[in-house]
Amino acid sequence: MTDRAYAERLDAEDPLALFRERFVFADPETIYLDGNSLGRLPLATRERLRELTAQWGSELVRGWHEWIDLPERIGDLLAAGVLGARSGEVIVADSTTVNLFKLAGAVLDTRPGAIVTDSENFPTDRYVLDGLARLHDRELRVFEADAVDGPQPDDVGRACAGADVALVVLSHVAYRSGALADIERINGAATPAPVLWDLSHSAGALPIELESRGVQLAVGCTYKYLNAGPGAPAFLYVREKLQADLRTPIQGWFGQRDQFRMERAYDPAPGVRGFLAGTPTILALGAVEEGAKLTAEAGVERLRAKAAQLTELIVAVHDERLAELGFRLGSPRDPARRGAHVSLAHDEAWSICRALIERARVITDFRGPDSLRLGVPPLYTRFADVYEALERLVDLVEHGEHRDVDSGPLRVT
Amino acid sequence: MTDRAYAERLDAEDPLALFRERFVFADPETIYLDGNSLGRLPLATRERLRELTAQWGSELVRGWHEWIDLPERIGDLLAAGVLGARSGEVIVADSTTVNLFKLAGAVLDTRPGAIVTDSENFPTDRYVLDGLARLHDRELRVFEADAVDGPQPDDVGRACAGADVALVVLSHVAYRSGALADIERINGAATPAPVLWDLSHSAGALPIELESRGVQLAVGCTYKYLNAGPGAPAFLYVREKLQADLRTPIQGWFGQRDQFRMERAYDPAPGVRGFLAGTPTILALGAVEEGAKLTAEAGVERLRAKAAQLTELIVAVHDERLAELGFRLGSPRDPARRGAHVSLAHDEAWSICRALIERARVITDFRGPDSLRLGVPPLYTRFADVYEALERLVDLVEHGEHRDVDSGPLRVT
Repeated sequence: MTDRAYAERLDAEDPLALFRERFVFADPETIYLDGNSLGRLPLATRERLRELTAQWGSELVRGWHEWIDLPERIGDLLAAGVLGARSGEVIVADSTTVNLFKLAGAVLDTRPGAIVTDSENFPTDRYVLDGLARLHDRELRVFEADAVDGPQPDDVGRACAGADVALVVLSHVAYRSGALADIERINGAATPAPVLWDLSHSAGALPIELESRGVQLAVGCTYKYLNAGPGAPAFLYVREKLQADLRTPIQGWFGQRDQFRMERAYDPAPGVRGFLAGTPTILALGAVEEGAKLTAEAGVERLRAKAAQLTELIVAVHDERLAELGFRLGSPRDPARRGAHVSLAHDEAWSICRALIERARVITDFRGPDSLRLGVPPLYTRFADVYEALERLVDLVEHGEHRDVDSGPLRVT
Repeated sequence: MTDRAYAERLDAEDPLALFRERFVFADPETIYLDGNSLGRLPLATRERLRELTAQWGSELVRGWHEWIDLPERIGDLLAAGVLGARSGEVIVADSTTVNLFKLAGAVLDTRPGAIVTDSENFPTDRYVLDGLARLHDRELRVFEADAVDGPQPDDVGRACAGADVALVVLSHVAYRSGALADIERINGAATPAPVLWDLSHSAGALPIELESRGVQLAVGCTYKYLNAGPGAPAFLYVREKLQADLRTPIQGWFGQRDQFRMERAYDPAPGVRGFLAGTPTILALGAVEEGAKLTAEAGVERLRAKAAQLTELIVAVHDERLAELGFRLGSPRDPARRGAHVSLAHDEAWSICRALIERARVITDFRGPDSLRLGVPPLYTRFADVYEALERLVDLVEHGEHRDVDSGPLRVT
């Protein structure tokens, strides 16, 4: 049987254990298993935000001499340390939603045919694509993916068969089940349509290897496993060989060649900088840089190894103690096919989630219709805390404590 | 003759004088006349950023219970205290560029015809419209506006004559000359096409009165006169009666009705919230809220009155001492037709701007081909400092000191 001593032994052997000390822990009694939604505050980020605020106050507009290159500089940091991409292929600005709109719109401008995505893709991706389908008068094909295993190469091949497909958009890690998609086989199944990967739930949790896997386009979020703070700017990736042929639909002055010569018609800046739009939010970018540095320092291979151990701990306790309480594993069994969160399905998942937060001081989240998500960001999550959270969960459900929480809305992202 | 004693008397009589103490002044020797590009750091904002950072660290994802309404809450604050709009008509998120894309795109989705703008409109506005014209296969008519007086009602009438016009996009205050457009007469001249106003260079500097002037659509920047920090989120305004008929092209999860019920197709939230896209940047929103509060407290009528006095001081010194040094007034003479910055044209404006910054510790900016812009945000600019800056300018040009600055690029926004 899995027990506390086993979890503590894993902590003692954890090569990433010291990274925990680089984060703010304001309330040691609460166990946080929702870093897949909003990551923790790094100490370095708190300091960096102070410095950037002071720099605004003292340098004023002169600060732009340094700030202007932040979207590319942080993009290069993410490329090298997190995404496995080349310098000049990643840029940080705007939200994931806006970046997806830019890249998907750019592809639709150059390729005829349908847009393909899957039923398990994150809502904002489906909404953006629905809007683009209307705008460009294209078909949006939403194929059914398995709710646990996520989109498979054969699904993609079938969805792309028999008609022109302009673009496929998929999530690397499914937001609900945590299923990890097979990038190379899916890219192959979609050919010749390019696949645009949403890396929101994988960036910072495991290696992405955009370069070696031949990924053409990607977007992703920085406020989850990259710990850049609520609503932090997102990134986008355009493989170098595609950059000259794609043009963002949102033409703004930060994407203009020689931006401060303002008298001319729009002429996109070369490279990935041409995908910037308006003025990027500088304070928020500083937080992305600190988060990216921490992740790069820990190393994505070590993060993946620890994430697999952490999620295995949840699966083991599920099998030993939770299954008999009505839980079903909502994530793939093979740790090589999971990201860094586990979904536990239960008919009363919503009230269990609420009771966990309000009574057991375990922060998780609920995703409809029946999923309790447990996120275990490997950079700062201890095995003993995961074990303790699962003990509290077992205890709570055994005693039926979730049956008398009130039923108001629970709104967390 | 205008002299220092006159300027000091104006400071002594200034009802807004004490607001200066609410801002960080890190370097009292430097005179900052570029708040029209990036406003100063309010003390309250420094504190608010600390608080929000701490809240992220302690509340983690639970912070969203409070943060989720910030785009609308700050929008309402701007509506009431800065823009003269009604509650539920303004929202804060994304950049001015992205917001302009959303609103202009929404109009093009409902109306056939050309897009009209003017040659003096801010570059990002022209770039966005150029992109939308390509996307929607529309004509973009860029009419020539006077470089000093900006777009006039007759210009707009002529540009709209003889063809269907879907949308007119203009700046309320011209970014280079500071010319203030006549909203009501121009709206009348454009009818039936709606006019989308870019308020970036007027919001926080003078009354806007969106409601009473019948404005239908607007966007604007918060990092200039609203002092919200480099790249702070922008606002957008949609008059209530138009909200149900317009739909943003960028459909994201923050604009979705009942956002956390994720299983459904896109269905825009009612009201102005439907114009949100991705996750808004929370730290940056806090800075917008503090900046908006300060402006509302000072009152837009008092800000306009002081801005007129400040720009009059520049015009007076121009006429008395700068004209003979080769300067030409690049802004309207009538203070009722100006915003809160003055443009001084000079054949050597670029090197003068550079010498002012490097040798005279006066921060201004240059806008091609020949404009030195002097911004005098009324919330924290002293008359005596403006006078001192002009003295330094006269001294520098009289001695030809600008002729030996190096010629590298000067990149400030």
